[in-house]
Amino acid sequence: MSLPSVFSRYHAEVNAEIKSLISERQSPMYDMMRYHLGWIDAHGRVLNRSNGKAVRPTLCLLTCEAVGGEYRKALPLAAAVELVHNYSLIHDDIQDDDIERRHQPTVWRLWGKPQAINAGTVMRMLAGVAVRRLEIPCERQVRIQSLIDEATIKLIEGQYLDISFETKPDISVADYLDMIGCKTAALISCSVESGAELGTDDRRRIAALREFGWNLGMAFQTKDDILGIWGRQDQIGKPTGNDIRHRKKSLPVILGVSETSGPRHEELRRIYNRETLDEESVRTVIEMLESAGALKESQRITVEYIQKARDIVNSVSLEPSFRRDIDELVTFLMDRDF
Amino acid sequence: MSLPSVFSRYHAEVNAEIKSLISERQSPMYDMMRYHLGWIDAHGRVLNRSNGKAVRPTLCLLTCEAVGGEYRKALPLAAAVELVHNYSLIHDDIQDDDIERRHQPTVWRLWGKPQAINAGTVMRMLAGVAVRRLEIPCERQVRIQSLIDEATIKLIEGQYLDISFETKPDISVADYLDMIGCKTAALISCSVESGAELGTDDRRRIAALREFGWNLGMAFQTKDDILGIWGRQDQIGKPTGNDIRHRKKSLPVILGVSETSGPRHEELRRIYNRETLDEESVRTVIEMLESAGALKESQRITVEYIQKARDIVNSVSLEPSFRRDIDELVTFLMDRDF
Repeated sequence: MSLPSVFSRYHAEVNAEIKSLISERQSPMYDMMRYHLGWIDAHGRVLNRSNGKAVRPTLCLLTCEAVGGEYRKALPLAAAVELVHNYSLIHDDIQDDDIERRHQPTVWRLWGKPQAINAGTVMRMLAGVAVRRLEIPCERQVRIQSLIDEATIKLIEGQYLDISFETKPDISVADYLDMIGCKTAALISCSVESGAELGTDDRRRIAALREFGWNLGMAFQTKDDILGIWGRQDQIGKPTGNDIRHRKKSLPVILGVSETSGPRHEELRRIYNRETLDEESVRTVIEMLESAGALKESQRITVEYIQKARDIVNSVSLEPSFRRDIDELVTFLMDRDF
Repeated sequence: MSLPSVFSRYHAEVNAEIKSLISERQSPMYDMMRYHLGWIDAHGRVLNRSNGKAVRPTLCLLTCEAVGGEYRKALPLAAAVELVHNYSLIHDDIQDDDIERRHQPTVWRLWGKPQAINAGTVMRMLAGVAVRRLEIPCERQVRIQSLIDEATIKLIEGQYLDISFETKPDISVADYLDMIGCKTAALISCSVESGAELGTDDRRRIAALREFGWNLGMAFQTKDDILGIWGRQDQIGKPTGNDIRHRKKSLPVILGVSETSGPRHEELRRIYNRETLDEESVRTVIEMLESAGALKESQRITVEYIQKARDIVNSVSLEPSFRRDIDELVTFLMDRDF
């Protein structure tokens, strides 16, 4: 399954915007950002590696166009949401002790955690600088800045919950959904909403698109959780069962624990609460989750959010050609294997 | 030596502003911020501990009044600069592995580094929220937001340099001054400049006050470096020689290395480059620095910046009573032993 062409439509221009933001700065610190974004390798040599799917800037610009806006004017905004997302990845990798991302060593693995903290935080600061590049009325700029700040705050609150779940014995599905609402859906929703803000004044359309983005974000994360256990290393850049190895309380695990009972339930909890999991334990956990129906139920929940997102977006008046692009993007996000 | 009364003048109101910002948020994550600010202890019990000297908000509000502004309208700005400063302390403690601050365990020591990273970053985000509370024309608000963002970016660039100095063999005094210009002077300068922005439209006065703040910030940091080696534990909340123990390349060390020669130079470098320094080595280094005249030279540099700051502020037209307050604050910052 390959990435639909809509993902590459804005790619070069969003990258150029981010490059231009970084090029105003002198410190070698920004090499950590360039490396994380796939522009240079660990020795500073220029690369042409793709830096992820760029889901958020693509959604932002597509939505802007779909409500009648000009995507070129929204490029700094698309850069901003991509910077927020990538700042969070740099910090997540530190917090989770992850040594690889996109088949490459993580920033902290090469520069150490103290410097990687700086790289992440300064990347978040540049998102604010990007928003000030938008040539729009001042009040609207402040509103967009507020949307992005609040989405970042939600994202951090979600990351706080996610980490705190690691040491809590019983996490309910409701707890989990609350966490991913903050950690993932808030920024995806913000990407869509802020893109819409640049294209229209119609508050009802903007509100509906925010809801569309939120449901899409929920589905995106539950799908990610499925791939975090059952995804293939060559596709997602992380070994199969990676989230199990890190004892992440992702959706299939929470469902698995809540839907098994008796000795199997105890066994699953016991294995999962070990300090470290060897490869055999990882395989055992995956099998137990499958036989408890956790994969199927995770897929059902994903489809439910996707359907909700589709229903909402279908109720909004959009430019037909961009509606088709959005539909294609939504379908890909649900069916993807990476 | 006690804190001049000017430091307590705005204290309660700045704290109330920060409290009101945090009280809008629900997550238990904000308890890390409350703890760091000295409002609650590790068990969540309410305290009335002072949270540091609050140099930046005091300078911000004093300057605002000194150019004819109303400090009450600037309280969200004062809260913002205090939040930026405290975010940086939370991250610094993580990056430097410091286990104590203000006689208390650091945030990461109690909650772990992953969560402390979240506490720091979200604290920085709340500074932006604070700026949007300012009831001022939109264009000016965007300008203030930009000043604070750029000061934060400088601060992070300075922290990057500071950490990178740890593994570089020869740091010149010029390198060091460049680093503290970013790490410390930028935010102090921004506190003064943004405070002035809220009180006057006179660009020349604002520019002069920014320069005043920058020189004051430089002196503040060189003085801090002196206290980081020769300060008393009961006064500064950290053991004497703490910066030596952490092999920080602070001003006295850089001066000491550059002003000794031959075997003494080699000996100093050799001891300082050890993985860990025992208490005897710490004492030896301090004695070597003293006999090389590094304490005296550090004091001379501090006085030079203070004098520059004084000359500039004396050239600016200010309300007389606030000028006296600023003079008192400057004198204290130079003479302080904590």
